[in-house]
Amino acid sequence: MNSETGGKVIKCRAAICWAPTKPLTVEEIEVEPPRAGEVRIKVIANSICHSDVFVYDGQLSGTMIATKYPCILGHEATGLVESVGDGVTSVAPGDYVITMFNASCQECVFCKNPKTNLCVARPIDEVIMADGTSRFKFNGQTIYYFGGISSLSEYTVISEFKMAKINPNARMDRVCIFACGFPTGYGSVAKIAQAEPDSSVAIWGLGTLGLLAVCAARKCKAKTIIGIVRNERKIELAKKMGCTHFVNTVKCKEESKTVADAIKELTGGIGVDYAIECVGNAACVREALESTAPWGTTVVAGICSANDKLEINPNQLLSGKKLTGTFFGGYKSKQSIPQMIDDYVDGKLDIEALFTGSVQLNEVDAAFQLLKQGKALRTVIVF
Amino acid sequence: MNSETGGKVIKCRAAICWAPTKPLTVEEIEVEPPRAGEVRIKVIANSICHSDVFVYDGQLSGTMIATKYPCILGHEATGLVESVGDGVTSVAPGDYVITMFNASCQECVFCKNPKTNLCVARPIDEVIMADGTSRFKFNGQTIYYFGGISSLSEYTVISEFKMAKINPNARMDRVCIFACGFPTGYGSVAKIAQAEPDSSVAIWGLGTLGLLAVCAARKCKAKTIIGIVRNERKIELAKKMGCTHFVNTVKCKEESKTVADAIKELTGGIGVDYAIECVGNAACVREALESTAPWGTTVVAGICSANDKLEINPNQLLSGKKLTGTFFGGYKSKQSIPQMIDDYVDGKLDIEALFTGSVQLNEVDAAFQLLKQGKALRTVIVF
Repeated sequence: MNSETGGKVIKCRAAICWAPTKPLTVEEIEVEPPRAGEVRIKVIANSICHSDVFVYDGQLSGTMIATKYPCILGHEATGLVESVGDGVTSVAPGDYVITMFNASCQECVFCKNPKTNLCVARPIDEVIMADGTSRFKFNGQTIYYFGGISSLSEYTVISEFKMAKINPNARMDRVCIFACGFPTGYGSVAKIAQAEPDSSVAIWGLGTLGLLAVCAARKCKAKTIIGIVRNERKIELAKKMGCTHFVNTVKCKEESKTVADAIKELTGGIGVDYAIECVGNAACVREALESTAPWGTTVVAGICSANDKLEINPNQLLSGKKLTGTFFGGYKSKQSIPQMIDDYVDGKLDIEALFTGSVQLNEVDAAFQLLKQGKALRTVIVF
Repeated sequence: MNSETGGKVIKCRAAICWAPTKPLTVEEIEVEPPRAGEVRIKVIANSICHSDVFVYDGQLSGTMIATKYPCILGHEATGLVESVGDGVTSVAPGDYVITMFNASCQECVFCKNPKTNLCVARPIDEVIMADGTSRFKFNGQTIYYFGGISSLSEYTVISEFKMAKINPNARMDRVCIFACGFPTGYGSVAKIAQAEPDSSVAIWGLGTLGLLAVCAARKCKAKTIIGIVRNERKIELAKKMGCTHFVNTVKCKEESKTVADAIKELTGGIGVDYAIECVGNAACVREALESTAPWGTTVVAGICSANDKLEINPNQLLSGKKLTGTFFGGYKSKQSIPQMIDDYVDGKLDIEALFTGSVQLNEVDAAFQLLKQGKALRTVIVF
């Protein structure tokens, strides 16, 4: 425990999301010490993810993301353990850690089941801690959590199950992306689809998730990697990451053909082995399903809005097509993330192109605007 | 080649389906000799499947079942090769064979791909032979095919790719079910779901397909095998086949709970590992999806009507749920069916309970009525 702050309430700065669509403001808040099973961390870096924007915009998405305002956003962060609550054994003050909104207690019936990466110890969408209270206050007012993480704060208190100790030699303002974006995008191809050498993969949405799916497809030695784009300016980077072909949705419309038609033209009339939806849009999921080979797998990686609807005739699946989703790329967080970070430190994973900016906490609202406008991939808030 | 009939037009009796919902009539037709790549077989036994009823009723189902009237139905048959056309090498006159609407040329890009059991050599829904003509005539009028098989006829001419030579010691009025019903129902659990020992399986629809799914779940040593029933009289046989629990949809409604609620009650609140839809109804597919564990697989085995719609929010899949379909249980027909029949001959597969009657060709329309009314499982027409 840090002898100066341990056991005490810490006053620090945090970005508060007051209500949907309202600008974030940076305020001085109070952060209580960790209670049993909790850890207080000093945040080092936080990259902004589209799920943060969902809450910022008030676009809640069914059961996966619950929110209560005012809250502190942020869930892709690295930090240093400042102090720990009773019973915490997996991390200690001074450890470098990464946040994990997808908990891993390693003891529940889900954690022990190799078929799922969910954990029943702590919910994904927690807005308060296990004891029913928040550790954050602003002028005496309760500030809620987002995903039990809320790392857009100089200090945050998190369940022990929602963090992992990581390689202290890692670049902390880069490996924060392993807290969500990396496993979700990369895992959609590498772990869920398990694309084989010479296979074909099509990817909807060439933001951070989609580019990581492209990156995984290349690592899997897929032969045909098709990016579905609306915006030509996304092509250059996607090509650099591994895309071999592109389908422009605007051009398809002009030529009165469907995206599925265009994809079949590129794959000998058969369709792709794997279709990865990283947009979060049911119409794209349907398009993806229609673009696969009769045995093809469609992976839903993007989060759709709560009232979005996919409408299909079940007979479309009879040829053996598969439709599945991925949460956190199917990886068990506590086992997988530290290993991925070691691989990054060893130079096996090149993610530098995904970082489009680095700003201070007082510029956080502008950073959200950039992501909303599609002008950024990952912007890192450094503390 | 049978020296008496080879090379000649054969006059024989066949059941003709004149138009949707019209009774089948047994007529004397003419069957031409086989052309290149074709085989004429003397049908021994034909069991009636629900897909035959779809056409009988005019309920076409999207792309999988195309029909043209008047036609001869029947696609689950065993027979004896009477004569073969030019170039046929895999069967010879005197061989016992089974029909396969799911072709297998063993040479096309699909046949060589381990991921699919489809074959591009002959379509599933062919209403005429490869050269664009039919081998059937009634009073000079063309009679069309159903699935390129049309085995409700004393003689039929089929592509070599749509049959397999089988064990001559098999009981021909039983193993005809291996032409469609058995692989589709059994394979949904044994090959597509690949249920493990101690897993949980729920099955919608306890007709032939559903009971074969139950049978496969028992063979896979599933621990919890839940039959979803509306009709209590289906329970006894399903229990005998392996069901360990039942959910009665009528009782669920009375108790204002969903089938998914009832299934979760039976599975510790988690849902089943595998949900198998054998009804052919999008509402049941949705119910199945909602009844699975977060990692569960839903297999669509039943054929829905062409305008049936499954409506889901793609976020329902994010936990890692899988939705897939099965055509012919995922089995490659030419390799798998003869082996299944050998297993049957060796006493490894008990399917006797599925046979609820055996009649002559002139009773064929009554046999269709029994199946439509849910009063029969498999009725065999013996020739």
